[in-house]
Amino acid sequence: MKRVGVGLIGFGTVGTGVVRAFQENGELISERTGIHLDLVRIADIDFKSVRSVSVDKSMLVNDANMLFSDDKIQVVVELIGGLSPAKEFILKALKAGKHVVTANKELLAHHGAELMEASKSAEKHIYFEASVGGGIPIIKALRESFAGNRVNSIYGIVNGTANYILTKMLEEGKSFEKVLLEAQKKGFAEVDASFDVDGIDSAHKLIILNYLAHNYWIDMDSIYIEGIRAITNQDILYAKELGFSLKLLAVSKKEKDCIDVRIHPAMLDASNPLSSVNGVFNAFWLEGDFIGESMLYGRGAGGNATASAVISDIVDASRSIIGSSSVPSIQPISSGLKLKNIEDLWCRCYIRFMAVDRPGVLAHIAGILGKYEISIDSMLQKGKHKARAVPIVMMTHKAFDNQLLSAIH
Amino acid sequence: MKRVGVGLIGFGTVGTGVVRAFQENGELISERTGIHLDLVRIADIDFKSVRSVSVDKSMLVNDANMLFSDDKIQVVVELIGGLSPAKEFILKALKAGKHVVTANKELLAHHGAELMEASKSAEKHIYFEASVGGGIPIIKALRESFAGNRVNSIYGIVNGTANYILTKMLEEGKSFEKVLLEAQKKGFAEVDASFDVDGIDSAHKLIILNYLAHNYWIDMDSIYIEGIRAITNQDILYAKELGFSLKLLAVSKKEKDCIDVRIHPAMLDASNPLSSVNGVFNAFWLEGDFIGESMLYGRGAGGNATASAVISDIVDASRSIIGSSSVPSIQPISSGLKLKNIEDLWCRCYIRFMAVDRPGVLAHIAGILGKYEISIDSMLQKGKHKARAVPIVMMTHKAFDNQLLSAIH
Repeated sequence: MKRVGVGLIGFGTVGTGVVRAFQENGELISERTGIHLDLVRIADIDFKSVRSVSVDKSMLVNDANMLFSDDKIQVVVELIGGLSPAKEFILKALKAGKHVVTANKELLAHHGAELMEASKSAEKHIYFEASVGGGIPIIKALRESFAGNRVNSIYGIVNGTANYILTKMLEEGKSFEKVLLEAQKKGFAEVDASFDVDGIDSAHKLIILNYLAHNYWIDMDSIYIEGIRAITNQDILYAKELGFSLKLLAVSKKEKDCIDVRIHPAMLDASNPLSSVNGVFNAFWLEGDFIGESMLYGRGAGGNATASAVISDIVDASRSIIGSSSVPSIQPISSGLKLKNIEDLWCRCYIRFMAVDRPGVLAHIAGILGKYEISIDSMLQKGKHKARAVPIVMMTHKAFDNQLLSAIH
Repeated sequence: MKRVGVGLIGFGTVGTGVVRAFQENGELISERTGIHLDLVRIADIDFKSVRSVSVDKSMLVNDANMLFSDDKIQVVVELIGGLSPAKEFILKALKAGKHVVTANKELLAHHGAELMEASKSAEKHIYFEASVGGGIPIIKALRESFAGNRVNSIYGIVNGTANYILTKMLEEGKSFEKVLLEAQKKGFAEVDASFDVDGIDSAHKLIILNYLAHNYWIDMDSIYIEGIRAITNQDILYAKELGFSLKLLAVSKKEKDCIDVRIHPAMLDASNPLSSVNGVFNAFWLEGDFIGESMLYGRGAGGNATASAVISDIVDASRSIIGSSSVPSIQPISSGLKLKNIEDLWCRCYIRFMAVDRPGVLAHIAGILGKYEISIDSMLQKGKHKARAVPIVMMTHKAFDNQLLSAIH
């Protein structure tokens, strides 16, 4: 089996997720892709913090430069975030002939054009699925799946922290400040939450999406950015009363020779699929001239979801390295999975039957269901008629399908 | 620029969409990918039907075999559907050294294992994004984006016709038979609707999804398949009353050493994102061990949406042919897009302000808004107090942002 060596810079939340994916699903990935991914080295300046995965200590280095000179490493994964030294690391990695995988939206938003130019000169790729939408494959969708489309509109809920705060404000009636404080305590929000709540992180992501749709790196300064600090509980409740959800929205919309790009709180009416995207979830609603409307939804942040995107990029980079096609030839997985029998299904069931409305009929039916250990969750009976049968509808609690079949027959 | 030649078998609805995409977005695709896609030949047995695109007549042939022997063609796209002669065409194309793109879910469901074996022997790929979910990139997501995940659950609304019928039955209170007849008249349903309404088409698609998740071709006969013919308006209304949506659901769920695979109508409660997937739309809800829950949503059928998936596959095949990486290096698009100014935004606005509840105050505010040609759609006022100001909330009709800013200041 062909091998590809990977070096990791940054052993924080996402880095830990990536290591966990290597450890837990490395064999599966090899089976699927026919490539063995080798985690060669991890660079970080802090190895004292406790992490939820353990790695061989010989793998750890303090100096990221050691990765660039290592011939066993063909893919460098940058997960430290921020502008510097992340930018220098990526440029060095490209110059050293490594493909680069990064989750760094801030860096791409500020220096995307320069990095793409460096990638072109070095004839090595920069992959950045993890920079927007966590595990949601929005980058690949825009870049590959919708390659035949003019994507004229993208509307996104792209910051999980801001969306979590707005959701909690609605659900619990607490103020912005109180919810933010709680989110910070739970680790859902950074101590410096400005990037998230002031729309800056959303703008970084929007710049990347807009680049993919229109091949145009917009300057941060030229985007209208409004965050959620000024939103009160009153606003959220009034929005609800008027039939809307209040969301921090990222918009990229092409109109003739003009792009409308902005970040601000928006009222979404209930028919808008983005209006029901709650908590830490992200979603992208987009429209292409051939696909029509489409939406991608999922966890926009978190170590594991983001790690999933990083692994997808590492696999793509590896395929590029070993010269295999972009289509993974799925390898047989040596597992003897059995098919489940429908009778073994354990679920709530819907039953409709006609019954004469006579005393004792329902008791009789309930008795039969009870005999087969099926309990009734809710029941509806419409209309009453002394002589004729009327429909009765029941939703049961969870039961096995074969219990139900036995009860009915 | 590198060129890749494409041959099309089948000039029906999807074939027409593919030709339209070549004609309308061919240049865009070249700019994006750096590859010029050349539509060389179209094979069909009927060239008399009127189509919404016109092509050079020299391109049309009656005999698909002419494509396999044509050296200018490197990618063969099969869009005729059905088992035979589609299968023979694909096997011949592979043997002739062509990559294959197909939308044929029935063929894959029945002979997927054999076709993949043939693809391996020929060292050419079979791409099938268009076989499931129209333009929704579910195949690429499962195969590439979620490569690092164990995808343990997939729930899908995978047949647009069945979903359209159920939606219409609920909205218009018409019977299954009546809605089906209307859908057939509008061309939304085939004359022989059995594949769609009896769950067979859904089963074909589920077999493909299950293969991607578990590398396991399930036999059609071993799947529990129940369609929507037996559903009455009563059932749909009762479902609604109980707080559920009735949907034809495709399920692939892994439980320890067992896969639970089935197609049947299911009650989805309102908190389930699939419950609000209506009309011809499809959606896939899935869960991976790293990404967590994710959903992809869009148009599951139709010439253009399916053509979008076909083009995505042709681009992937072309990248594989010219040996470029799976990452398209986005080429500069020669367009001078301008950024839209936030003041030029034309939208409905939400305004909240504090006002003393005195006669004339509202009239005064409405007067100011009116002066700037902003009209009010709805208004809420909570609480009344003679002396203190109370919050007033307004939703306006569409207005320019600068009108609103002027009115407020």
